[in-house]
Amino acid sequence: MKKEFDDLKEMHEYAWRLIVRGTLDKKSPARHPTLGTIGISGMPELRTVVLRAANQNESNLEVHTDVASKKIEELKWNSNVGIHFWFPSKKLQIRIKATSEIKIGNLVKKEWEKIPNISRISYGTMPTPGTKIQSSFAYEKPANFERFCIIKININEMDLTHLGARHTRALFAKNNQWCGCWLAP
Amino acid sequence: MKKEFDDLKEMHEYAWRLIVRGTLDKKSPARHPTLGTIGISGMPELRTVVLRAANQNESNLEVHTDVASKKIEELKWNSNVGIHFWFPSKKLQIRIKATSEIKIGNLVKKEWEKIPNISRISYGTMPTPGTKIQSSFAYEKPANFERFCIIKININEMDLTHLGARHTRALFAKNNQWCGCWLAP
Repeated sequence: MKKEFDDLKEMHEYAWRLIVRGTLDKKSPARHPTLGTIGISGMPELRTVVLRAANQNESNLEVHTDVASKKIEELKWNSNVGIHFWFPSKKLQIRIKATSEIKIGNLVKKEWEKIPNISRISYGTMPTPGTKIQSSFAYEKPANFERFCIIKININEMDLTHLGARHTRALFAKNNQWCGCWLAP
Repeated sequence: MKKEFDDLKEMHEYAWRLIVRGTLDKKSPARHPTLGTIGISGMPELRTVVLRAANQNESNLEVHTDVASKKIEELKWNSNVGIHFWFPSKKLQIRIKATSEIKIGNLVKKEWEKIPNISRISYGTMPTPGTKIQSSFAYEKPANFERFCIIKININEMDLTHLGARHTRALFAKNNQWCGCWLAP
């Protein structure tokens, strides 16, 4: 664990390295961030997602989901998202504010082709996810390309809190070219 | 890890046992859930919190925070919260929808007296949390009882997803006496 930070650039690079590791290492806490949306009824909605891609140069992330899932309905209504990472052993919290885009069909064909058959069944559950069913296993999971989508998450802000020897907190914003500033923790 | 669930009551009790463990065991993933609120500007806001109390009979949870933190400003404006737990080794996700109450002053004096001096400095940072500062450590952390508050989280719904041998998902609601129903995962 890093003792403490006093350099904004170093802190920002450190956070990005940890995020990118989540796309490669299934055991990294960055593999499973929490995606927050605003529900149709006005409730905060949180769920675990799998981080599929992270690009610091373009400041975006990608997750895959079923277009019939509730979160897609929510994102069509309000595209604002929060992404949250917590690294217990590093005592680092990453809070991201972003807007999202939903990509389907021809735009995601290349990624679909890379998905093993066994994993494709995550896209196509019948009845659709969240539908009330009569018993625990009263559903089927056919693979269905029409139901596969990528949520592209375009980051606007990244708020880092490190609970080191002394606590530090810094905010990095796209509209400030990611220069960053310190915040009281 | 539990192989799979086909009993609603068993699944609900299992989730509560894991939640309660978070109040006792600092290494439990339930120790650090994610709290979601709706920001003043309409963004989903997510952050790690420490679970301080969990009461199944009263279906509530408690976390402590600084009344000057942004989340309190948000909760005064919109008291709806989401709480999210993810247990990597158990492959269980717990998604909670709740409303919150903020307790300060005499209502929290008893809890304040149980907090060690070294931990009381979490309540009183100057300038207040989130204020822009000139350098990483340009803040002070006096202990200040006036700044200590408890967020009481009154649970309305609990949505459980278990990625077992076969996936299962169930929804439990207060207005249905927590009987639960199965959902397509």
